[in-house]
Amino acid sequence: MSTDPPTGSTPTPVRREGGRSARVREAVHRAVAELIAEQGPEHLTMPAVAARAGVNPTTVYRRWGDLHRLLDDVAGVRLRPDDPAPDTGSLRQDLLLWAEQTRTTITTPEVLALLRASVGRAATTPGPSPRMAAREQQLTAVLAGAERRGEPCPTPQQAMDHLLAPLYFRVILGLGPVTADYARTLVEDLLRNYAR
Amino acid sequence: MSTDPPTGSTPTPVRREGGRSARVREAVHRAVAELIAEQGPEHLTMPAVAARAGVNPTTVYRRWGDLHRLLDDVAGVRLRPDDPAPDTGSLRQDLLLWAEQTRTTITTPEVLALLRASVGRAATTPGPSPRMAAREQQLTAVLAGAERRGEPCPTPQQAMDHLLAPLYFRVILGLGPVTADYARTLVEDLLRNYAR
Repeated sequence: MSTDPPTGSTPTPVRREGGRSARVREAVHRAVAELIAEQGPEHLTMPAVAARAGVNPTTVYRRWGDLHRLLDDVAGVRLRPDDPAPDTGSLRQDLLLWAEQTRTTITTPEVLALLRASVGRAATTPGPSPRMAAREQQLTAVLAGAERRGEPCPTPQQAMDHLLAPLYFRVILGLGPVTADYARTLVEDLLRNYAR
Repeated sequence: MSTDPPTGSTPTPVRREGGRSARVREAVHRAVAELIAEQGPEHLTMPAVAARAGVNPTTVYRRWGDLHRLLDDVAGVRLRPDDPAPDTGSLRQDLLLWAEQTRTTITTPEVLALLRASVGRAATTPGPSPRMAAREQQLTAVLAGAERRGEPCPTPQQAMDHLLAPLYFRVILGLGPVTADYARTLVEDLLRNYAR
């Protein structure tokens, strides 16, 4: 019944983003976002995305290969954080804001589905997702600011290990609700244990 | 060129594990393990697995749908930890042994690829992988033993957040080498910060 889906090629080669190719990509990306928001990520399929985007399914398979590659492409383009790194002049306030912004963003169904897909994609392409790397850079910027002001602060690795990692880990693996209190506790523990 | 690969159905329905079906599954699982060990997970494809297993590619696509579902099935069957939870009579020793066993296991290419695939699979089926859950149970058992002996110890959530989460997070995302020293530091920090 089925023949081999395309494998092994880069799903989105560098090309001029104009004309039909760019319009298809935008329509498909928007369809992914809409379907995840409406039905949850577990019902997303390539044929449903193609139907919503008004594109032939064969086009979607040929360009993206499978759902994980498609989600990864969407994550790279649509989900870079557009909130700047907090810069209140206080490390505690900056970290609390960063943690809450991050928590709120990564627990929305669309972003969560894209994050999980990016991690799964690392099965064939190791390395963090663009989105994850951007959040890490924000955290590093917050710490660098505190260090310039002479505040005691954890190292970037300690902040990654004891704030970013548990936050993302719980969310990505679906290990129960990730509340504002939980995020706050991670920040307070990080400061108590490492910023002294 | 390509038609829709099968989607939406459970890749491995409950069935009697006898006869041809069981032999195909075993051959395909073994092929996945061998190919990952020989070539690295990034070169794994469904056609290559089928060829190594001596099975028609159509059979593999029909039964597992895509590479992520196949890897998830392999993870569930082949990779439950067979090392028992450490029980030395000392929380520190138990945690150091657990961390090093876990680190050694999850950094092998085959296990790592399967872990990543399991997380990616959560894009459509939330919840931790069987393998992850088993490691969590080991950690909980270690803490329960220490509590029975009256040793000061962290809560299971603190151990998950500050030992298991950073260890898995760094490995799964490929954020640089995860050394024995790194695992040991996580254990010592956990005890210093939370077991008192």
